[in-house]
Amino acid sequence: MLDQISLNPAIRRVLQEQLDRVGVTFERQLASDLTAVNRLCLHVGAYRGKMLRPTLTLVSGMVAAGDPGDGSTLTDAHIRVAAVAEMIHMATLVHDDVLDDAEVRRRGATVNHLRGNETAVMLGDYLISSAFHLCSTIGDPSINLAFGEITKTLCAGELLQLHHREDWSLDEETYLEIIRRKTASLIGGCCRLGARLSRADQSTENALHDAGFRLGVAFQIQDDLLDLIGEETTVGKSVGRDLAKGKVTLPVLRFLSHASPVERGRALQALREGDACALGALVRSAGTIDSASDEARRFIDEARRCIARAPAGPARDFFDQIAMSMMQRRS
Amino acid sequence: MLDQISLNPAIRRVLQEQLDRVGVTFERQLASDLTAVNRLCLHVGAYRGKMLRPTLTLVSGMVAAGDPGDGSTLTDAHIRVAAVAEMIHMATLVHDDVLDDAEVRRRGATVNHLRGNETAVMLGDYLISSAFHLCSTIGDPSINLAFGEITKTLCAGELLQLHHREDWSLDEETYLEIIRRKTASLIGGCCRLGARLSRADQSTENALHDAGFRLGVAFQIQDDLLDLIGEETTVGKSVGRDLAKGKVTLPVLRFLSHASPVERGRALQALREGDACALGALVRSAGTIDSASDEARRFIDEARRCIARAPAGPARDFFDQIAMSMMQRRS
Repeated sequence: MLDQISLNPAIRRVLQEQLDRVGVTFERQLASDLTAVNRLCLHVGAYRGKMLRPTLTLVSGMVAAGDPGDGSTLTDAHIRVAAVAEMIHMATLVHDDVLDDAEVRRRGATVNHLRGNETAVMLGDYLISSAFHLCSTIGDPSINLAFGEITKTLCAGELLQLHHREDWSLDEETYLEIIRRKTASLIGGCCRLGARLSRADQSTENALHDAGFRLGVAFQIQDDLLDLIGEETTVGKSVGRDLAKGKVTLPVLRFLSHASPVERGRALQALREGDACALGALVRSAGTIDSASDEARRFIDEARRCIARAPAGPARDFFDQIAMSMMQRRS
Repeated sequence: MLDQISLNPAIRRVLQEQLDRVGVTFERQLASDLTAVNRLCLHVGAYRGKMLRPTLTLVSGMVAAGDPGDGSTLTDAHIRVAAVAEMIHMATLVHDDVLDDAEVRRRGATVNHLRGNETAVMLGDYLISSAFHLCSTIGDPSINLAFGEITKTLCAGELLQLHHREDWSLDEETYLEIIRRKTASLIGGCCRLGARLSRADQSTENALHDAGFRLGVAFQIQDDLLDLIGEETTVGKSVGRDLAKGKVTLPVLRFLSHASPVERGRALQALREGDACALGALVRSAGTIDSASDEARRFIDEARRCIARAPAGPARDFFDQIAMSMMQRRS
């Protein structure tokens, strides 16, 4: 997240230091007196990525507090909330790796994979529980309530997505409802809580929430696009997973709703066969890759207008720079 | 739980009414604006069982408050904590049903099973999140902190158990550590929080926690025994699951540590083949079924001594009757 050269380098350095504190809090919170548990938690490190949610939590806190750009307004509670958000996010990634039966059969389970599922489930549960526990140590019931609501919404979004697996007639509103719940609610919540911990007034809290929420929608649309057309070496994770899991994403659903019967037939065949390459080519030639990309950009534009409602200052500029840098997202 | 004829019928009726309130709170808390989510939540009803955790929460609250036996001392917070505990328990049951790859292969996945795993994982996550959300509505940070700690401990216990799968040399202390964490911590916690909500003094809170904790250990030993030697029609769930999941339980580990090389060889063969019937016969003839049964009874005796440390009254007598009825547990 912070590797964009377009970002203010001084604030970038400050945030990197604060994110290191988030990392330390994260690891301390997961530490157990059981060696077996600690060994598993080491694997969680492999899921650590952009730290988007902690970054936006901290930046929102700085914006709301009118931080001069040195992070001096950030408190220990900001660090904990940032770590809680990352832990919840990580739990969803770990649980996302639980293979359904079809995948297991397709891959042909090896001895190494034999116990993958149950351990992944329990490790994810350990992460969620640790997140709620850390959250409770802040001692502010409103933070607990907010995270309870956010995770409930997030899970409902995931369930809605599962319900619509291989639903080739999925409409755009339902797609947006899924990603608002499963992705945007947590990112918007991070911005709101970061602001709240800086004693923001309600309108600033709302402005930052609304900005984060829209960035979350854009981020998920981009994620879905990268899964369809990205290169594994650039994206840093395997692509074509959505297809394998029967997830219908924005470019695909837009393509399906506008395609001729012949094109639609070809696309459905590619979907059923899990042929990401053929599907990507079809969707690209019809221009719906670009149209989905534009949609993400529209959400980023909206987010920037929300950011402009927050108090001006170097932190607000930085938040805006993050939004702009997302316009060029390639991984 | 409350169907034992040895229990005081008046208090039984009172508790049944209060448990109905717990059920209503439970269902309301899971209700979603999404039909797909509500439809899944209906399935959760199938997991509803003895309501042991809610019962002990409420009874502990009554004991600590010196309730005259009519439930008049129970508050809405008691009902919510009872529902939270059941929701957490239910989440572990749902996640326990996630099949590992080996089982999937052994059973041969049918079309109906194709999407079982991912939905089970997300539904369990929805339950956990709903539990934490409900917990946060009480507005008492100490309750949140307690449930955060309890679930973290519970998951660590499950992870420790997974770590020791098919560990035929599992020692008794590790077995007890697993069940203390995965089962006793939640049941002990229910009793502590029920008492705390009744403004119990520290010694009463501890007495009830210690009683619940020991009943939890006994309950799990009995569960493990029933899985090995119970009849499916009586137990009400499939037996032999521990074996299929490579879980080594008290009667089995006691048998293995005392068996002659020949007997041990036979038992290991039954374990590897997942032959619950052969294993049950071996273990029974060696007397380790009885010895494990006795161990459960010893924990119940200890629990009763802890109960005796709490304030006397009809509710305390009822708690003691529950403990005694567990001596004869057959399902």
